[in-house]
Amino acid sequence: MTKIVGIGGSLRTSSYSMMALKLASERVKALDVDVQVLDLRTMTLPFCDGGKDYSNFPDVSVLREVVTQADGLILATPEYHGSVSGVIKNALDLMGFTELSGKVTGLISVLGGQPNSNALNEMRLIMRWVHAWVIPEQIAIGQAWRAFDEDGQLIDEKLAERFDEFTQSLVTNTQRLNTK
Amino acid sequence: MTKIVGIGGSLRTSSYSMMALKLASERVKALDVDVQVLDLRTMTLPFCDGGKDYSNFPDVSVLREVVTQADGLILATPEYHGSVSGVIKNALDLMGFTELSGKVTGLISVLGGQPNSNALNEMRLIMRWVHAWVIPEQIAIGQAWRAFDEDGQLIDEKLAERFDEFTQSLVTNTQRLNTK
Amino acid sequence: MTKIVGIGGSLRTSSYSMMALKLASERVKALDVDVQVLDLRTMTLPFCDGGKDYSNFPDVSVLREVVTQADGLILATPEYHGSVSGVIKNALDLMGFTELSGKVTGLISVLGGQPNSNALNEMRLIMRWVHAWVIPEQIAIGQAWRAFDEDGQLIDEKLAERFDEFTQSLVTNTQRLNTK
Amino acid sequence: MTKIVGIGGSLRTSSYSMMALKLASERVKALDVDVQVLDLRTMTLPFCDGGKDYSNFPDVSVLREVVTQADGLILATPEYHGSVSGVIKNALDLMGFTELSGKVTGLISVLGGQPNSNALNEMRLIMRWVHAWVIPEQIAIGQAWRAFDEDGQLIDEKLAERFDEFTQSLVTNTQRLNTK
Repeated sequence: MTKIVGIGGSLRTSSYSMMALKLASERVKALDVDVQVLDLRTMTLPFCDGGKDYSNFPDVSVLREVVTQADGLILATPEYHGSVSGVIKNALDLMGFTELSGKVTGLISVLGGQPNSNALNEMRLIMRWVHAWVIPEQIAIGQAWRAFDEDGQLIDEKLAERFDEFTQSLVTNTQRLNTK
Repeated sequence: MTKIVGIGGSLRTSSYSMMALKLASERVKALDVDVQVLDLRTMTLPFCDGGKDYSNFPDVSVLREVVTQADGLILATPEYHGSVSGVIKNALDLMGFTELSGKVTGLISVLGGQPNSNALNEMRLIMRWVHAWVIPEQIAIGQAWRAFDEDGQLIDEKLAERFDEFTQSLVTNTQRLNTK
Repeated sequence: MTKIVGIGGSLRTSSYSMMALKLASERVKALDVDVQVLDLRTMTLPFCDGGKDYSNFPDVSVLREVVTQADGLILATPEYHGSVSGVIKNALDLMGFTELSGKVTGLISVLGGQPNSNALNEMRLIMRWVHAWVIPEQIAIGQAWRAFDEDGQLIDEKLAERFDEFTQSLVTNTQRLNTK
Repeated sequence: MTKIVGIGGSLRTSSYSMMALKLASERVKALDVDVQVLDLRTMTLPFCDGGKDYSNFPDVSVLREVVTQADGLILATPEYHGSVSGVIKNALDLMGFTELSGKVTGLISVLGGQPNSNALNEMRLIMRWVHAWVIPEQIAIGQAWRAFDEDGQLIDEKLAERFDEFTQSLVTNTQRLNTK
């Protein structure tokens, strides 16, 4: 069975990235695909020191094992300073080719101002570097503070449709590209 | 007096980024400029949670105050996955326009394979986003494991010359652009 | 006397890039600086073939000489396919370090959809490559078809203010960095 | 039958980009796939003026029709000024979503100095923008003047192996992703 894992790059209590990731993962689940979301707010990850041994941090093993088992990934990051958050980059730094190579990835960025492609562009190049696939469909949510209603649903219908297309493409193409 | 602050983006014990940063800062000092290097290995910084309050982490205040007082910056990062380290991006995420805007910045990246511009490009766009200046001269040290001799000096003379040009440009142009 | 040269990357008859470039150059002129705009629609430039000899195309010499004499540059491009136009990239390809190195550059992009930084990011990296300076201030005009009034003036006052800041920074910092 | 179309971004008589493209297309052909190479040196393309009508240039129709019929693309560009050539960007500007969307693309760059990812990164973002796929495998040929022997074959065996992997991935994944 196809498995998609979502990772959110924000540690904010009311994180819009995590809200967006939740919406995407619900849509993926509705397509009869196994979904697991890793919430970095509830995990204890160290800063990457360039080494391999993080045996004092069991959540590093959890991260690595869950991602290794995935066929596809959703990476959702807040855009900080026109790029990915240090939090999500550090989580990626704790992994390598073993975990990430060949994964089919969909990208979401969330920011307070006008939507922009900066963080998405950077994540695309990072994931290419570890030989992952990145689907052409991507989502940038601008002015995130007014994008969601009280129930965590998207207010803009067109944006909601983009989520449908995004998740449909992610699932379909993960299955096409992973022909184990 | 002109003040340059260096930040290294690696937590490795024998970090080549820190070795490169040390060489650059010595050259800056030789030009009669005040230099201070922030070694993130000896500081306790939290992951950025998108908020402003880090009163439990006095090193966040140290980072912010030292950078605020600087006229120029040197950012030295290992290239992880074709981009900046999560460690240095997180340190930048803990600051904002107040600390970084208008600073004149020189960029160094260090990697194990062939030299590349990926991390340098990304740092350039990040620093632009916070309205800092970035000098055209930049340094990518490839195959870092054989770039330094036992005394931490550069083996390749041409690379050593690039350090001279890099630091000379950084100092001269920091002074030209900061006409307080 | 400081000299700024503007180059527009569009060949459209009613080019918004050229309208934006005209506005910027008028503001530069108002700061008592010599300004010249190169309109690629009225020049006959060949495609760059990687060589140096374009003696059959006198406008290549015009381009090179005018840019060589400049202290600063304004590059205004339409964003095509999330990047600079082939037209402006080709004009830059016809020049090299001799013409471009050390120039202080301000960047403008114009597009039909939501404003984006893609073309600006790419121009920043291109100009860095030829060792030019790029000022932190930059302008992306989105939905260009409704950005200008009948007299070619900007409708959005905030955007007009950004033009003021942009040109002021370009002139001031061109003078600071060019201390011939 | 799967069809791959190659486009070279150089107009040089002895273009290394075209040599690299030829090698890649021969490998693709050996995998029983239909291959066609568009040599821009023998086509008469105008500069893109942002419009749609190029009826005076029949080669624009040729370009568009050949690419429309393709399932996959190989784009080979010289790296000029740390980015794609204006020549290849202009050829892409003459097309749009109709021709390019959904195509599975492999990227090659060729440069005189050390290999770099700059032009490859930019092509990846451009092709994403028009909703094409780009395979993770990519090739940067540095010091191109000494990469080929007298018969136009690659001297470095490891590089030749990368061509094998690159073309194998392009063909396999074009077939996986295009399930017409």
